[in-house]
Amino acid sequence: MNLQKWFGCAHWLPQYNREWLASDLVAAVVVTIMLIPQSLAYALLAGLPAEVGLYASMAPLLAYAVFGSSRAMAVGPVAVASLMSAAAAGQFAQGDVALFYQASVALAFMGGAVLILLGLLRAGFVANLLSHPVVGGFVSASALLIALGQLGSLLGVSAKGETFFETAVVLVSKITQIDWTTTAIGLSALLWLWAARKWGKGVLKSLGLKGLGLEIAFRAAPVVAIVISILAVTVLQASTVRTVGNIPTNLPGLFFPSLELASWVDLLVPAVLIALVGFVETVSVGHALAAKRKQRIDPNQELLGLGAANIASGVFGGYSVTGGFSRSVVNFDAGAQTPMAGVFTAGGILLATLFLTPLLTNLPHATLAATIIVAVLGLIDWHLPKMLWRYSRRDFFAYGLTVLVVLLAGVEAGIIAGVVFSILALLAGVSRPHLAIVGQVPGTEHFRNEKRHKVRLVDGVVSVRVDESLYFPNARWLEDVLLEIAAGKPGTRALVLQCNAINHIDASALESLEKIDENLGAMGISLYLSEVKGPVQDQLALSDWYKAIQSRIGLTHLDTLEMAQQALS
Amino acid sequence: MNLQKWFGCAHWLPQYNREWLASDLVAAVVVTIMLIPQSLAYALLAGLPAEVGLYASMAPLLAYAVFGSSRAMAVGPVAVASLMSAAAAGQFAQGDVALFYQASVALAFMGGAVLILLGLLRAGFVANLLSHPVVGGFVSASALLIALGQLGSLLGVSAKGETFFETAVVLVSKITQIDWTTTAIGLSALLWLWAARKWGKGVLKSLGLKGLGLEIAFRAAPVVAIVISILAVTVLQASTVRTVGNIPTNLPGLFFPSLELASWVDLLVPAVLIALVGFVETVSVGHALAAKRKQRIDPNQELLGLGAANIASGVFGGYSVTGGFSRSVVNFDAGAQTPMAGVFTAGGILLATLFLTPLLTNLPHATLAATIIVAVLGLIDWHLPKMLWRYSRRDFFAYGLTVLVVLLAGVEAGIIAGVVFSILALLAGVSRPHLAIVGQVPGTEHFRNEKRHKVRLVDGVVSVRVDESLYFPNARWLEDVLLEIAAGKPGTRALVLQCNAINHIDASALESLEKIDENLGAMGISLYLSEVKGPVQDQLALSDWYKAIQSRIGLTHLDTLEMAQQALS
Repeated sequence: MNLQKWFGCAHWLPQYNREWLASDLVAAVVVTIMLIPQSLAYALLAGLPAEVGLYASMAPLLAYAVFGSSRAMAVGPVAVASLMSAAAAGQFAQGDVALFYQASVALAFMGGAVLILLGLLRAGFVANLLSHPVVGGFVSASALLIALGQLGSLLGVSAKGETFFETAVVLVSKITQIDWTTTAIGLSALLWLWAARKWGKGVLKSLGLKGLGLEIAFRAAPVVAIVISILAVTVLQASTVRTVGNIPTNLPGLFFPSLELASWVDLLVPAVLIALVGFVETVSVGHALAAKRKQRIDPNQELLGLGAANIASGVFGGYSVTGGFSRSVVNFDAGAQTPMAGVFTAGGILLATLFLTPLLTNLPHATLAATIIVAVLGLIDWHLPKMLWRYSRRDFFAYGLTVLVVLLAGVEAGIIAGVVFSILALLAGVSRPHLAIVGQVPGTEHFRNEKRHKVRLVDGVVSVRVDESLYFPNARWLEDVLLEIAAGKPGTRALVLQCNAINHIDASALESLEKIDENLGAMGISLYLSEVKGPVQDQLALSDWYKAIQSRIGLTHLDTLEMAQQALS
Repeated sequence: MNLQKWFGCAHWLPQYNREWLASDLVAAVVVTIMLIPQSLAYALLAGLPAEVGLYASMAPLLAYAVFGSSRAMAVGPVAVASLMSAAAAGQFAQGDVALFYQASVALAFMGGAVLILLGLLRAGFVANLLSHPVVGGFVSASALLIALGQLGSLLGVSAKGETFFETAVVLVSKITQIDWTTTAIGLSALLWLWAARKWGKGVLKSLGLKGLGLEIAFRAAPVVAIVISILAVTVLQASTVRTVGNIPTNLPGLFFPSLELASWVDLLVPAVLIALVGFVETVSVGHALAAKRKQRIDPNQELLGLGAANIASGVFGGYSVTGGFSRSVVNFDAGAQTPMAGVFTAGGILLATLFLTPLLTNLPHATLAATIIVAVLGLIDWHLPKMLWRYSRRDFFAYGLTVLVVLLAGVEAGIIAGVVFSILALLAGVSRPHLAIVGQVPGTEHFRNEKRHKVRLVDGVVSVRVDESLYFPNARWLEDVLLEIAAGKPGTRALVLQCNAINHIDASALESLEKIDENLGAMGISLYLSEVKGPVQDQLALSDWYKAIQSRIGLTHLDTLEMAQQALS
């Protein structure tokens, strides 16, 4: 048995050297600085105590290091998965706090199990059902949902609605209850983070910083916001400002959700969706980073890595984790050579959990809300809808539908609506392929669409080309359209189907071809096939109909046309 | 406005003549003889009073005559739709007889409305989702379900289970309660009908009958069984034999189900399924019969015709109707020229309702059960599973799954399972297309799979052909596989994608191609496209990426290869 098949680390651990160690350590410092505020903030976004974000930032990194295949991936809590987890756990727990936590951890366990199962079955292709417009629409709409939800924390009011518009209405109705101290802290943090993101690098460069120092200083902007806002709350003794409060400094114990089987079943669909959305993002980041170093990742290995990370998260009482885009890019840019950087990051978070958390008691929710808002608004691809509208209306509608349903009915419904629409639209497209009556381009052996080119047609013989494989979605269409063509050209004695664009013929299409042959026969018209691809001909040979049609299959279209004409004369 | 667009009869009514009248009248006599026992039997199968079968055999024929497009179609109650109607109404009514009847009529109304809506939207293609293996498996399993269910009536015991196996168990447990008089009548009828079906035509021919006389005599076999069994019950005064009882001789009044909106919603899914299954059968028969006379049918017109027939059925208190296969073939063979034959048949059934029904009081259920069993066993295509196993495992599994789920969980669940599996299997196939690394066949301009042919490969340039359109199900697969090929051939400097089998590129695939271009670029490899089809190139031109890739799209593959080589040197 090949160990490398299961353990991604077998690819790099044996060659691990001092040079890599140095690079990985430096990357770990940068990522740890970035991760501390993020992990606290995303835990709150997921509806969980802040420390759960820290728990989800240790064990998963170790598990991914053992099983993952991407060198610079940084797994941990991310915004979209946190929102999805909060929505699913909230719907399940109906206000019961203990049950909410159990459900959040169960989602990580189950999502991890699903990913590992898909990895073992090498069935990662199911994630492909999440098309680009659906994922794009989903992430954008989720970002809006998250940003609006955090606006309440930023202003010091509690505004939680079931949908985007409900939250907006609640927020407006509470406009008089705004806490101005909280708002001052939150808006200051927001402005600071936004300015740091926009001008930070430029300012730091003009101060003479470069390389690693620049990177660390730039990534420390949220930490600065946190330190200042903690100081502000402490100095002002601002009791109206909601803060993180006491965070336990002990490490998480082993945990397993004590839920009934029926509860696990209830949580299965959201667990699968969270896992697949996370997987899609992880693979996408993984490919991009690997290509920059001429490496590659194995999507099935990523399933194992991300699955193990989620289960590790659950075992230590954490929630769903994903390979985050921006965090992984930072890890890569800071020089991470192997997932050992993640192991060191986990160590950094461990130290923070043990020694830093007592200092965070006075950290205002508003500051964390500001970091979330800035992060998620960066996830929105404002350019995408225009691009889709121009490129393909069908893809645009898939995008628009996903956005609308996410905002009107929630994240789960939105992603399901988008996927179902995409599949039905694909089937609708396949069900009515492009079809052309073709004729010979004079002086050549080429046959082209009679509507687009000046071509020579033969009396009594119609040539038809279908630009699609023949499947059940278009099998009956083919019957309709070929019989219509035959009935519409009274003198027709033979019909030649040019099969050069047909990659498959399934059993439904076979049945339809047989019926077409039979029905055309009843009309005194012979059916011929030309340019049938090798694999398709091999499969046709397995059918009973092959005996009947075999002598009417020609190699080139011209050959077949001549064959048909000879039979007529 | 073009009247012909809505009224199928506009195609033939203006030319109606004496010759057609004579043919249609004769066909109507034959079909009426066949239809009387069938309509009674199928009504019982649908769980309804026998006269409802008669109601469903009048108005629908008139409505179809006005709107339908097939000349020899005979619409009315059929076995499979009756079973589906019984299952849906039974689940809905939970034992309430009045509610059961309301639901049965509501299914006809709603099914009719759905068909008309699809016809107006010209969206008949949704019926294509019912693939050949799914329909075949569904019909076969339903036939088994029906036959087993009727076995109880044949033996004079009540044996109704939720599933095939439950019914079988109940039947076995009641083996001691068999009524021997009923069984004697039922088995005699079964043997008679089976023998008549198998040898009837031969015997009648040897008696010198031919043409129309032969046809009428042959079709009268069930009538003979009915007459003899009525006489037997009457003479023997067999009180243990369950009979049809008093059938009202008055005509049906106008009817509309008095159900709440929520109840209509509950019945929507089964109504849609019954309507679609019926539509698929109707179109299939229609095409076959039309082709024999070099006519054609319009599937969208069939939607209107069948929809109107179902609504007409409901308006007069009937239940779901379909264009039956065997009945339409009989109609055609007996010489029906136009749907006027159906109008005359409706007249025949009207006369039967008024004057014949008093004679049917002593008609045993067992005799009707025998006619149903013989009819449905004829629906099973015993050859299909072997054919599918040989031709395509995927289609075989779709068939097997449908059969199993119908038998284990019922007709509705079976058809849904089959359709969902077919769609997922299609997507799975699309998600991993055939891909070949191609090289030049020496001395030609052709490029072929390096694994199948001796070809010339160029150092530093890899040529890849994908035999499928690029859609979201295979977009990420394409990223994985192209990056793997590039990483696996270290000296690669250019990759040429031959696009001659690509009929579409959707937005997800566009995004993937952009990423591939970017990621290959990061590896120092240039991406080229060759033989891009006209419509695909037109669409690519709408994307931002086109500016970047435009200069790397070549006309023929050879041109493109030379272009890539020049850029390298």
